Amino acid sequence: MQLARVHGFAISLDGFGTGEGLSLAAPFGHAGQRLHEWMMHTRYWHRMIGEEGGGVGVDNAFVDQHDYRIGAEIMGRGKFTPQTGPWTDLGTAEEWRGWWGQNPPFHTPVFVLTHHPRPSFELEGGNVFHFIDAGPAEALEIAKAAAGGLDVRIGGGPSMVREFLAAGVIDLLHIVQVPIVLGRGVRLWDGLEGIEAGYDVESVSTPSGVTHMTFTRR
Amino acid sequence: MQLARVHGFAISLDGFGTGEGLSLAAPFGHAGQRLHEWMMHTRYWHRMIGEEGGGVGVDNAFVDQHDYRIGAEIMGRGKFTPQTGPWTDLGTAEEWRGWWGQNPPFHTPVFVLTHHPRPSFELEGGNVFHFIDAGPAEALEIAKAAAGGLDVRIGGGPSMVREFLAAGVIDLLHIVQVPIVLGRGVRLWDGLEGIEAGYDVESVSTPSGVTHMTFTRR
Repeated sequence: MQLARVHGFAISLDGFGTGEGLSLAAPFGHAGQRLHEWMMHTRYWHRMIGEEGGGVGVDNAFVDQHDYRIGAEIMGRGKFTPQTGPWTDLGTAEEWRGWWGQNPPFHTPVFVLTHHPRPSFELEGGNVFHFIDAGPAEALEIAKAAAGGLDVRIGGGPSMVREFLAAGVIDLLHIVQVPIVLGRGVRLWDGLEGIEAGYDVESVSTPSGVTHMTFTRR
Repeated sequence: MQLARVHGFAISLDGFGTGEGLSLAAPFGHAGQRLHEWMMHTRYWHRMIGEEGGGVGVDNAFVDQHDYRIGAEIMGRGKFTPQTGPWTDLGTAEEWRGWWGQNPPFHTPVFVLTHHPRPSFELEGGNVFHFIDAGPAEALEIAKAAAGGLDVRIGGGPSMVREFLAAGVIDLLHIVQVPIVLGRGVRLWDGLEGIEAGYDVESVSTPSGVTHMTFTRR
């Protein structure tokens, strides 16, 4: 059975998964790196940016799951780019191909949800980006077919995770709550009253100060 | 030094300290008892309702602090009564004297914040209720003077805790985050962007599923 899994999705105490004022210079808006500092101390992160070292404690155990036995990712367009509306740079020298350089950290097919489909492209390391105009169930069906029998990661941002939760298609939701009050941005929990009824919830706080929560579908 | 302390203040994952639709029959609105079930398993709670038993684990260690070395409480009017506006039942047989019967669980002076002051009254067990029209700093000054050198508990609800946090007068904030999504009600964190900068924050999750967080003023 292939699961739909969310991993390492960081939110503030007041439930914001990203800040306000997203731009090329500030992918998380006024939140800056504050939602992800806990992750930057892990071996997982160090390895991703080509460095030695990093902690292998509880935070790392959780974040290592991000890649393990994942065969495809679905992400919202907002994770791929801060641009909205029709693509204006296709085929130009400035064509946007994501934040992650020539060898993004996915190493699987990636399906970007957008109302403006565009041609697929391939980067190094097995990263193939597709662009599809589909709802949660259909997108998941497409991604599962491309995942080689492995699971599908639901990559965020907050709006698409919320949409997939509302559609009832997420099997594992791993939230990392960071003890900061962001005050503004995009909230994860809006419109999800009572969502916990469909899940077994476990929580564990770690010395870095964050609290990991797993929502496992019943 | 007398501290201003908040204890056992329960919020949902989406930050609501109380639900929607507060009434005499539903003091926490549609939240019902869901924000406080963790507490009902403790020895503290059992003792409060006159029963034997209850757990003496980590949840109980936190909730026992609610009373320890507290000499006065300040509460918002919304904690005292769901009624708003001028008091209409004073001196009648139906005069409202709180939810807690003849021997409320405070056993100290209690200062109720209201724009409609009314005469003080005394119940059993050292419970004396006063009604004052004052902002956070002034209310705290009054309560400290009545606390016999002990600390002052800031009793809630969410609007008054938020107001006292914004005023910068809270020394210890103990939050209990319950893994439910309430969806509606009164939020604790609104308008408190960046509040963590003034506090050292520690978190610990317990087997009951809640996460205790202490905010200790720097």
